[in-house]
Amino acid sequence: MPGDDIRFGLDRRVRLAAPLTLASGQALHGVDVAYETYGTLNADASNAVLICHALTGDQHVASLHPRTGKPGWWPRLVGAGKPVDPARHFIVCSNVLGGCSGSTGPGSIGPAGDIYAMCFPVITIADMVAAQLALLDHLGVRVLAAAVGGSMGGMQVLQLAATAPDRVRSAVVIASAARHSAQNIAFHEVGRQAIMADPGWRHGNYGDTPPAAGLSVARMAAHITYLSEAGLTEKFGRRLQDREALGFGFDAEFQVESYLRHQGLSFVDRFDANSYLYITRAMDYFDLAAPHDGRLADAFKGTRTRFALVSFTSDWLYPTTESRRIVRALNAAGAEVSFVELESPHGHDAFLLDTPEMNRVVDGFLRAGA
Amino acid sequence: MPGDDIRFGLDRRVRLAAPLTLASGQALHGVDVAYETYGTLNADASNAVLICHALTGDQHVASLHPRTGKPGWWPRLVGAGKPVDPARHFIVCSNVLGGCSGSTGPGSIGPAGDIYAMCFPVITIADMVAAQLALLDHLGVRVLAAAVGGSMGGMQVLQLAATAPDRVRSAVVIASAARHSAQNIAFHEVGRQAIMADPGWRHGNYGDTPPAAGLSVARMAAHITYLSEAGLTEKFGRRLQDREALGFGFDAEFQVESYLRHQGLSFVDRFDANSYLYITRAMDYFDLAAPHDGRLADAFKGTRTRFALVSFTSDWLYPTTESRRIVRALNAAGAEVSFVELESPHGHDAFLLDTPEMNRVVDGFLRAGA
Repeated sequence: MPGDDIRFGLDRRVRLAAPLTLASGQALHGVDVAYETYGTLNADASNAVLICHALTGDQHVASLHPRTGKPGWWPRLVGAGKPVDPARHFIVCSNVLGGCSGSTGPGSIGPAGDIYAMCFPVITIADMVAAQLALLDHLGVRVLAAAVGGSMGGMQVLQLAATAPDRVRSAVVIASAARHSAQNIAFHEVGRQAIMADPGWRHGNYGDTPPAAGLSVARMAAHITYLSEAGLTEKFGRRLQDREALGFGFDAEFQVESYLRHQGLSFVDRFDANSYLYITRAMDYFDLAAPHDGRLADAFKGTRTRFALVSFTSDWLYPTTESRRIVRALNAAGAEVSFVELESPHGHDAFLLDTPEMNRVVDGFLRAGA
Repeated sequence: MPGDDIRFGLDRRVRLAAPLTLASGQALHGVDVAYETYGTLNADASNAVLICHALTGDQHVASLHPRTGKPGWWPRLVGAGKPVDPARHFIVCSNVLGGCSGSTGPGSIGPAGDIYAMCFPVITIADMVAAQLALLDHLGVRVLAAAVGGSMGGMQVLQLAATAPDRVRSAVVIASAARHSAQNIAFHEVGRQAIMADPGWRHGNYGDTPPAAGLSVARMAAHITYLSEAGLTEKFGRRLQDREALGFGFDAEFQVESYLRHQGLSFVDRFDANSYLYITRAMDYFDLAAPHDGRLADAFKGTRTRFALVSFTSDWLYPTTESRRIVRALNAAGAEVSFVELESPHGHDAFLLDTPEMNRVVDGFLRAGA
């Protein structure tokens, strides 16, 4: 698919020539996909690896963020000498549709010349994947050597493998699930209600003055689900912040309060409230088995994609049971699949942290498929 | 302690003659304690049972709420033919200090003639217990046959047994903990920030117009912690509310969303936002071992109180590990203690639901101590 390819900060962006037909039935015109690449596509275009980011991630997987100057979000897995290595792979990472890091989302300008805001169509994980496939077309990548993602990134990998099995040889799904559970939806709904309850949200038309308080509360609630109870106890326990004794007030007296408040406030600087609404909605809608009357195996019928799944013992957001459910379905579909549950005290966030075992698993799996 | 005893709706209220010296060091004057009693105190005043309520509970444990007309909140455990039975026991239940159901709290009129609001002093579980002991003095109860509570009610029972071991013969602690964990504090902090982020909160001075949106979000977040993941899946799964297919919008499309929104909105009608701030703070401050350099056993040194502890398998708010920690401390202190972990899919809320096994345990324990 031809398109303009423009430098956007340190990363790039392509405007898709064709409209995207969304799961809702709507057509979305003039879709931009912002992306980063690392390494070089080889002669037979067989070394491309797609990295899919999580809810609040972006395309800057392995390089400095052009605005914040912070390092990429997955340096442990992607980079020189890592399982996904620009010396061997042509690495592609794009900001998801609905995001706020350059790809078209609710903060983009719509056809009427205004910011979409809540006029942006509700999107799905499948729509995100459709945008990524269009980007791969643009880059001349027909078949991916691998797609790799954690959390919502893993959902995209699963969706890609289900939608376009002929376009991905190896799929790595880390700390993820094939559907959002009632508890997953419940936590997201709390976050959305916190944003929408903020009068500064203005039904999405907040312009340059975001609903900071609501978005901050949403992030605080979500952040608790990324960590384990034991991890929080180890990291903070009941320790006080900059004080010797209880203050008998409502300041952030406990370290964990101070930490959470900081997480909430700093999130406001880097993420868009409407994008948060749309992406959480896409995740809540995710249920790969739904089009198959609940039979997840049917989503992968006849697949020749190889799968590796990784879960973490203390991840209660997407617990091991959800990975096992996917493994059972893949087994039933006759797919080649390996699965490992890794010990970690760090809860869901373990997939972003320094976990050498995870790296060994992913490295071995990718090399075996090369 | 003498005082006025006035009918207040269908329940009663006593104004304590002496000021309450709080854990913060402040003295609180003119404290009202609203309470209900059921049954009759016997001649030697040996049949009194104190029921302690949880975060959003009240004194109407076993009778219709005078305002809402709803039945008492623990009819399964307290009532005719139940383990705590007005035919045998003199049952006392009071609204906690800081509450909003008749006892003195942030919504009460302070000495200056205004509503306290955020000028109310920060209180602790120990302060709540001090108010209850003053009420028992007023009622002529020197020694309780038993104190019984679940969740924050269990914290009061533990505190009572630690503070005044000579005033309670049997202590029943259900689905509770001897301290708030980092995760417990984190969830409460999200709720408080949601309330305080609501511009309608007005630093506590909202008068008759409560910060409904913020309080509602606080309740939604808390409510998730009262239920188990499996329970939510069983009750709601991914079922849609009054629709056949996804609506591609932000209405409450999933049943679990609709349920949570209802929980949030209806909470606003029955609970005060500032009370929510103060009571959650008291719970976060709770750590029975803190005055003993972390040695929980020392809180119960030499006790002659008998203890029964109950936890539930799917309770992740106050998990079994916390009950076991208390049991170990009581063992180390040489106390008489029995403990059972009951199977339940209902999470923390199990203690309020129909759990025949819990009733058998409590009934057997109380009868053995009689």
